[in-house]
Amino acid sequence: MAKTIFITGGARSGKSRFAEELAQQFGAPLCYLATAQALDDEMTERVKRHRLRRGDAWQTIEEPLHLSHALARCDGTGKAVLVDCITLWLSNLLFHYEERDEDAEACIMEDVRRLTATLREMRTPVIVVSNEVGQGIVPENRLARRFRDIAGQTNQLLAAMADEVYVAISGIPLKLK
Amino acid sequence: MAKTIFITGGARSGKSRFAEELAQQFGAPLCYLATAQALDDEMTERVKRHRLRRGDAWQTIEEPLHLSHALARCDGTGKAVLVDCITLWLSNLLFHYEERDEDAEACIMEDVRRLTATLREMRTPVIVVSNEVGQGIVPENRLARRFRDIAGQTNQLLAAMADEVYVAISGIPLKLK
Amino acid sequence: MAKTIFITGGARSGKSRFAEELAQQFGAPLCYLATAQALDDEMTERVKRHRLRRGDAWQTIEEPLHLSHALARCDGTGKAVLVDCITLWLSNLLFHYEERDEDAEACIMEDVRRLTATLREMRTPVIVVSNEVGQGIVPENRLARRFRDIAGQTNQLLAAMADEVYVAISGIPLKLK
Repeated sequence: MAKTIFITGGARSGKSRFAEELAQQFGAPLCYLATAQALDDEMTERVKRHRLRRGDAWQTIEEPLHLSHALARCDGTGKAVLVDCITLWLSNLLFHYEERDEDAEACIMEDVRRLTATLREMRTPVIVVSNEVGQGIVPENRLARRFRDIAGQTNQLLAAMADEVYVAISGIPLKLK
Repeated sequence: MAKTIFITGGARSGKSRFAEELAQQFGAPLCYLATAQALDDEMTERVKRHRLRRGDAWQTIEEPLHLSHALARCDGTGKAVLVDCITLWLSNLLFHYEERDEDAEACIMEDVRRLTATLREMRTPVIVVSNEVGQGIVPENRLARRFRDIAGQTNQLLAAMADEVYVAISGIPLKLK
Repeated sequence: MAKTIFITGGARSGKSRFAEELAQQFGAPLCYLATAQALDDEMTERVKRHRLRRGDAWQTIEEPLHLSHALARCDGTGKAVLVDCITLWLSNLLFHYEERDEDAEACIMEDVRRLTATLREMRTPVIVVSNEVGQGIVPENRLARRFRDIAGQTNQLLAAMADEVYVAISGIPLKLK
C-alpha cells in the first residue's frame, strides 16, 4: 500500500495549497481528483482559480459521487493523486441520497468504507483534503447537524488509516501524526 | 487533589472515545457522569450508542444541572470519573436560568466556579470532556453568541486548572498541556 | 523590521489575554490599537472590560478602518503595539465598502496588503490578534461566506509574514511558527 496523507483545516486555511506542495514533492505527472460540482458562479470561479494555480503538471478529473471508482482508475497513472475535497464529496452524497429517499447516513458511511478500502489498495500515494466543520455553534438546521456528524466521523476514519495527518491553521500546517 | 484531565474538540472529533480510553487506563470500576438529557429521539439514540460502546466497567449517572454535587457523590466510588460533557451542561444551565428570568451568565459562571472548586478537592481522577464552539462565523442569534462566550470562558477556566489538556482533531488527540 | 507576532484562535479562546501578556514582556509604555466600534451595549461593555483589564501601561487608540495609518502613527511611541483585532477590522471594512457599492473583496485585500507592507516597516514590535472563523458549517448567508473567505485569506497572509504564530485553544497558546 502506498502512503495516504490526510490534510484537514477550516475554510481558507491553506489546506489545498499545502496539499499541492506535498503532492509536487512526488514529481510529475500528478492527478487532481476534484469532487466539486461547478453548479453556480461562485463555485465555477473557485474551481477555475484553483486549476490555474496548479498548472501543467496536473491532470484534473472531476467526480462528485463515485470517488472510489475514480481513485482506482487514477492508480498508476501518475506520481501522486490529490483528492480535493472529502467534505464536498460528502455534501454531494448527502443531497444525492436525500433526493432518492434513501437512508443517507448509512449509504454514505458505506461509501466511506469503500473509499478507505480503495485507499488501502492504491499503489500511487494519495493526498486527501478535508475540512473541519464541527468547531462552531451547533447548527439550528437538522440537515446541517447530520452533515457535521457524517463529516466528523469520516475525518476520524480517514485520519486513523492515514500515514500522515496535518491540520492547516492560518496557512500553517501542524503535523498531528 | 487527584489529577484533572481536560479534553476539548469539535463535534465528532473523537473526544469522547479518547476520554474513555484515558479513563480505562485507571482501571475498573469507572463512573460516567452524563450531562445529556435525552429529550428527543436524536439525543436518546446518541446516549444509547455511547452507553453500549462503554460496556460493563462503567456505572452511568445522569445529571443535567447539579454537576458539582453529582461529582462529589462519585468521589471514591471508582478508579476515575468521566464527565461528558461540559458544553451540554452549560446549555442545560442556560435554558434553566433563562426560563427563571435569572441573570444566566452570572449564575452559570458561579456554577463553573463551584465545579472547579469541587474538582480541586476530588480524590478520584476526573476526565472532563468539552467542545470547541467558537471557531465558526459569529452567530446571528444573540443567545447563541452568549452561549459561545460562556462556553469559551468555562473551557479557559477548566483548562487552566487541569493537569493535562488535549484537543481532539479528526480523532487524533493533540496534547496542549 | 521589528518582530511581528500573529495570534489567532476562536471566540473566547484567551487570545487577547495571551497577546497582552506577550506585549507586556516588551515593557512599558504600550500601545493598544483597537478596531472595535462600540456601536451597541454588548460591544461597549466588552470594550470597557478589556480596557480595565489592561491597566495604566497602555495607551488606547481606536481605529475601525484606517489601520495601516494608525499603526504607522504608533511606530516609535512605545515598546510594542497590540492590534486587536483583525477580524473586527475586516468586518468594519466589509460593511464600509458594501455601503459604498464598491468591490469589497478587492478593496479589502488591497487594505490587507497595505497593512502587511506597514508591518514590514515598523521599528516597534507588533502583536496582531485575529480569529478563526472557518471551522464551522458553511454559513447559509452569502455575505458570511464572503467574510469567512476574506478572513481566512488575511490570516494566511499575516501568518506567512509573522515571525511567530500562535493559536489559542481553551486559553492555552499553541505555537505554530
